[in-house]
Amino acid sequence: MKDHEIIREKISQAIGILGETAIDLWLTFVRETREGGDPVVPLIYGTDLTWQSALILTRSGDRIAIVGRHEADAARSLGAYQVIPYDEGISPDLVRTLTRLDPASIAINESRDDVLADGLTLGMYRLLTEYLSGTPYADRFVSAEAIISRLRARKTPAEVTRIRQALADTMQIYGSTFDYLEAGQPEKQIAAFMHAQVNRLGLRTAWEPEACPAVNTGPDSPVGHAAPGNLKVAPGHLVHFDFGVSRDGFASDIQRTVYVLRNGETEPPPEVKHGFETIVQAIRAAAATLKPGALGREVDDAARSVVVEAGYPEYKYATGHQLGRAVHDGGALLGPLWERYGDLPNGRVEAGHVYTIEPGLAVPGHGYIGIEEDVLVTENGVKFLTPPQTELILVHPS
Amino acid sequence: MKDHEIIREKISQAIGILGETAIDLWLTFVRETREGGDPVVPLIYGTDLTWQSALILTRSGDRIAIVGRHEADAARSLGAYQVIPYDEGISPDLVRTLTRLDPASIAINESRDDVLADGLTLGMYRLLTEYLSGTPYADRFVSAEAIISRLRARKTPAEVTRIRQALADTMQIYGSTFDYLEAGQPEKQIAAFMHAQVNRLGLRTAWEPEACPAVNTGPDSPVGHAAPGNLKVAPGHLVHFDFGVSRDGFASDIQRTVYVLRNGETEPPPEVKHGFETIVQAIRAAAATLKPGALGREVDDAARSVVVEAGYPEYKYATGHQLGRAVHDGGALLGPLWERYGDLPNGRVEAGHVYTIEPGLAVPGHGYIGIEEDVLVTENGVKFLTPPQTELILVHPS
Repeated sequence: MKDHEIIREKISQAIGILGETAIDLWLTFVRETREGGDPVVPLIYGTDLTWQSALILTRSGDRIAIVGRHEADAARSLGAYQVIPYDEGISPDLVRTLTRLDPASIAINESRDDVLADGLTLGMYRLLTEYLSGTPYADRFVSAEAIISRLRARKTPAEVTRIRQALADTMQIYGSTFDYLEAGQPEKQIAAFMHAQVNRLGLRTAWEPEACPAVNTGPDSPVGHAAPGNLKVAPGHLVHFDFGVSRDGFASDIQRTVYVLRNGETEPPPEVKHGFETIVQAIRAAAATLKPGALGREVDDAARSVVVEAGYPEYKYATGHQLGRAVHDGGALLGPLWERYGDLPNGRVEAGHVYTIEPGLAVPGHGYIGIEEDVLVTENGVKFLTPPQTELILVHPS
Repeated sequence: MKDHEIIREKISQAIGILGETAIDLWLTFVRETREGGDPVVPLIYGTDLTWQSALILTRSGDRIAIVGRHEADAARSLGAYQVIPYDEGISPDLVRTLTRLDPASIAINESRDDVLADGLTLGMYRLLTEYLSGTPYADRFVSAEAIISRLRARKTPAEVTRIRQALADTMQIYGSTFDYLEAGQPEKQIAAFMHAQVNRLGLRTAWEPEACPAVNTGPDSPVGHAAPGNLKVAPGHLVHFDFGVSRDGFASDIQRTVYVLRNGETEPPPEVKHGFETIVQAIRAAAATLKPGALGREVDDAARSVVVEAGYPEYKYATGHQLGRAVHDGGALLGPLWERYGDLPNGRVEAGHVYTIEPGLAVPGHGYIGIEEDVLVTENGVKFLTPPQTELILVHPS
């Protein structure tokens, strides 16, 4: 399915969601999206907008784009909006259009908790309020968070296909990396090998290339968002990877863990095996609770409890997040109720959501074990979008 | 010069600008910058921030980054900030830090007119206000627009070098494109040729690849932000290009115009030559007025008047914009006082600014003439950062 068709499908979905939420009109108000983009623009428009622009969808099915005249042809070519071009300023057409539609509620892209539903900047909000002064409409603003999080979260079959394609490329790159991997290589060299594969396939990394992949070898490598460093893979190390690609607008996000055997070892030592089994069990526990109707924090708790009850320290991040166009695709989060997560862990899981599941723990003296799987929620539970890691990948000493 | 050094240089520059503007403290408050980025983050931090993070610079020289613990190592590796890591929520450290510094004014990234100074979202603003309730600090907010526009606009020598590098690649790609160009080729094919060059050099286009390059052949091609289409280059056509690349974080933005000779022609017809000369004169007129102290609208008027007085319709966009990390690098704009440009055309030109100059006009029956040059303002007037186009590029009929 082509980009334009996916976008038209999402716009239809959005109009349905407006009905569910009983909001009359959703207004996305943006400018120069190349520089300071509202994250909803790729979903409902697909290309950049330069001058101040308004994308308007209504519960009764109106689809209106008010854009600078030089972008009117691009807007029309999407085949989704009635296009109103302007030359010097957007405000007359914007006020005229809202007055004609006379909505009782206007959703704007503002959210306390969800970065992907919070694309309206303070300056643009103030400008909008000013343009609407003398009308009743600035008093009718509500948050579009519920619309946007449902719209992003409910993947259409075409969207799931795109994620699967990104995953296929990711697993191919992982495969050749594990073949390549050997003791003595610095983290940086392994990351460079993976970047070469990404370039060869004409892809981009799913997040900033400096930290994608993350590569952590052994107990001294700082796990987090630091760039791969000069530490060298050595026997007895756990080597942890966090990596994804972006292909045709959709992302993957997968962690894998390797163990480097020491001379004479045929399998990892018991403490490594125990750590690995704990993570596998934690993922299974999360997957078993990840059903339509579950709360994000319940799924988080299922995985987190396995790790804590096995005697490991609690990991300091959420068990999983949604995945789609964005690596962190917003909406319901499989996380605990910590301040920085706001209300997202109270979000409810629905069929059609795609989540990561990614518990982790450190094994003293060996390194970090993190596995991350990408799964689709269906009415009957989860589908793993790529085969999960259930055995440690072993590298033999050279 | 390395990325980290350029960023450290900009941070020092920012502290100097705080002194000029008599603002005590500049607070950049962001989260998940990969998805909904504040455009100042690449200038003063350089990598993504995931959890809610505060970058604090003060007039007296404090440089403090409050970031999630997992990103503390990445923050420290920049070598620019005192790093305060947190686990569950940013608010205690944020309130403690502001209370200790007790600034009389706090600049936040909000701007009516400048998208690059308007990175604070409405949701994050409300969250910040909530975190600071019970302190006097939310009442001390001012706009950081003056800080950010000066900081972006005043290019350091290292920044100008990067722009020159992006320009060298751009002109190389243009050169091979003009060698390749011939009658019969569809716009799309020419754009694909240019994309192949961009990939070969390991670069990215300066704006979305669908519209970078813009390629317009003949009188029927819609000039604007539409993608290159199926129209074919033909004798008698003007072929207009708008193209730039992004290299090592900095952009170029250059327009060039080609004329395709008809059988028997040795030079373009008089109306094409007249149009071309008019644009060259308009660029010269703008360049002559582009000096420290000039207002953006004065420079716009110099170029615009040449076009209008030569009998052509007035172009419906600004004569030029700043160029740097962003293709439209914000701040003073060489434009008319139209609503959509806000107050930017009243901005004052300074030495160290880099601008495009890009007037245009259509020649009926032939197509569009647009030339765009990138120039550096010095104390003694402008320097063209690449040789300007002063002759129509001619393609011979095949």
